[in-house]
Amino acid sequence: MSVTAARGFTAGAVAAGLKASGGLDLALVVNEGPEHAAAAVFTSNRAKANPIIWSQQVIGDGRADAIVLNSGGANCFTGSEGFQVTHSTAEAVASALGISAGDVLVCSTGLIGEQLPLDRMLAGVEAAASSLGENGVAASEAIMTTDSKPKRSVREGSGYVIGGMAKGAGMLAPGLATMLVVITTDAVLQPDQLDRALRAATRVSFDRLDSDGCMSTNDQVSLLASGASGIAPDLTEFTDALTEVCRDLAEQLQGDAEGASHDIRIEVVGAASEDDAVEVGRSVARNNLFKAAVFGNDPNWGRVLAAIGTTSAAFDPYNVDVSMNGVRVCHAGAPDRPRDDVDLTPRRVDVLIDLGVGDATATILTNDLTHDYVHENSAYSS
Amino acid sequence: MSVTAARGFTAGAVAAGLKASGGLDLALVVNEGPEHAAAAVFTSNRAKANPIIWSQQVIGDGRADAIVLNSGGANCFTGSEGFQVTHSTAEAVASALGISAGDVLVCSTGLIGEQLPLDRMLAGVEAAASSLGENGVAASEAIMTTDSKPKRSVREGSGYVIGGMAKGAGMLAPGLATMLVVITTDAVLQPDQLDRALRAATRVSFDRLDSDGCMSTNDQVSLLASGASGIAPDLTEFTDALTEVCRDLAEQLQGDAEGASHDIRIEVVGAASEDDAVEVGRSVARNNLFKAAVFGNDPNWGRVLAAIGTTSAAFDPYNVDVSMNGVRVCHAGAPDRPRDDVDLTPRRVDVLIDLGVGDATATILTNDLTHDYVHENSAYSS
Repeated sequence: MSVTAARGFTAGAVAAGLKASGGLDLALVVNEGPEHAAAAVFTSNRAKANPIIWSQQVIGDGRADAIVLNSGGANCFTGSEGFQVTHSTAEAVASALGISAGDVLVCSTGLIGEQLPLDRMLAGVEAAASSLGENGVAASEAIMTTDSKPKRSVREGSGYVIGGMAKGAGMLAPGLATMLVVITTDAVLQPDQLDRALRAATRVSFDRLDSDGCMSTNDQVSLLASGASGIAPDLTEFTDALTEVCRDLAEQLQGDAEGASHDIRIEVVGAASEDDAVEVGRSVARNNLFKAAVFGNDPNWGRVLAAIGTTSAAFDPYNVDVSMNGVRVCHAGAPDRPRDDVDLTPRRVDVLIDLGVGDATATILTNDLTHDYVHENSAYSS
Repeated sequence: MSVTAARGFTAGAVAAGLKASGGLDLALVVNEGPEHAAAAVFTSNRAKANPIIWSQQVIGDGRADAIVLNSGGANCFTGSEGFQVTHSTAEAVASALGISAGDVLVCSTGLIGEQLPLDRMLAGVEAAASSLGENGVAASEAIMTTDSKPKRSVREGSGYVIGGMAKGAGMLAPGLATMLVVITTDAVLQPDQLDRALRAATRVSFDRLDSDGCMSTNDQVSLLASGASGIAPDLTEFTDALTEVCRDLAEQLQGDAEGASHDIRIEVVGAASEDDAVEVGRSVARNNLFKAAVFGNDPNWGRVLAAIGTTSAAFDPYNVDVSMNGVRVCHAGAPDRPRDDVDLTPRRVDVLIDLGVGDATATILTNDLTHDYVHENSAYSS
């Protein structure tokens, strides 16, 4: 059900002819109210796509009535013509729904540096607006690019529902937000409450996913609240439930990362600060040699320590422990149990790094570096 | 001739049984004088191998009489037993040559986290010391790991010679120094002059090479001067010649990078500062999506701009030009000439990025991300 699980939301999804495959490629999600509070977080990449530039303006007043998303083109580095396409798309949504274009969020995903065909976008919006209903599943399919399957998640709170959809399989290293994610809820919440909850949830979910170290120009996570349940939840409880939805979607993104054969969970403990733990986990997650070793089922902990050594985190190289899938292969910076005791054949790989200097922890999700990753990204054409 | 091209230097190389292949794996380079000035730069990785910890002490007084190098094991994260192996190796060299162990530099390369066999190291040192002569070529072969060929370079100055050797094919992203490099000269220079010249030369050569973003624990570049020519050169002239040797060796390292099918030269111009230019070049060089695209001969300039967007460099995304192999595919942040005009089939790829904000420039050397890179690094066993 994804974005239409919560009351007060409808969605439409159509094949607008943007994707070469001819599949669904344009989704429209509408908040029917009674309330229209919204929050969003965006990529921290300084090279931002046109829909990001537009949506950052829209969200300024904490209100969004609809969000339109397309695959088949990122509309990034397409000049003023590209910005006009985004603007006209929002205008078309506003015209079809009788709302203001200033309350329409826009998201795009696909190849950078190619113009989107304006006529197809406008026709697609019209068709999507004519097919609004409980189409959360179809909407989650329309935003797919190289994704092999759609990503959806729903949680029930005390009298309210949170549902969401996500796309993303490559360029997965968000700075603040990530990929395209739309989450809806029928809870009654004010924009500033939504903003606080969304930032808290994304900080420990999407922001801890680093599949390939490559930050996108188009990442956007939007949260829309209709208030249709009539329930004003406790903000802590709501944030916890929202975090569960975000973590679930982040794990689905990790599990479908382009070409990956392992889902790697790097847990850093004993850090002096959470920032240190995140820096260490991210440095290991981005180390190509470590990632290639995991692809080959090789528990090469020396590459883990070499990656830690490039960080500014507090640690003593001779007081670090590393375990892989439960086997401590490195103790106090020296060999411990034999590498052969480690079985890396399962898709899930757990790496535990104990820095031994404090109590802070963080977990980073990543993937291995595979032949298929190289292949899929050397022939990108979606 | 490499390290024995300059007068006053001898070398020996033997198969000490450290490499599974049974090939040459231990090299000894001796400065016969009359002078023994030396300088060295080391990895900035905070996780340092035992030979790095040792050599940093040795170089403190600006004198080195010999340098012993082994492949077949990095002697990193091998605890106090590993440090003892390094220490004993230096002692063995000192004993064989009648010098002080405190004047013996040590370098190791190979797998991290495995002990080196002390008995074989000591026997190898003895054999190498017995075979000293003009064996610079054999020495350059003895330090190879996954290298497909040895790297050597020689330049003649005004009455003096600079010669060097290098090894390195993976984990190529030095922070200060890189890989194992030994350079000798018969010029008459003081330790502080050697240090200044070496830092100036490595800053614009090895420090601008970033093959795979992975910084080694064992990088060391050593420069030894025998004074045997009797010529005390102009330091600027010497530094220029030394820089040529370093650049030549760096390009040989790039050309032999594990699994690479393209040598990519990223030239950043129009930057506000040299630091900005280096940061931008390095960010592009480390972007796996860009590197995989080059492997597939795809001039995907959007991935270049997305990588620039993650830096802190001064730039306006809508005032950046990108050319590939002479074809400007992006002008002012929008599509320019067609991608199809770019021919990326040659091994050499030139990427020119004009940030359009200043006069500073820098060039970073890197490689593409290939199936062979993944394969070789998932089955590392040298």
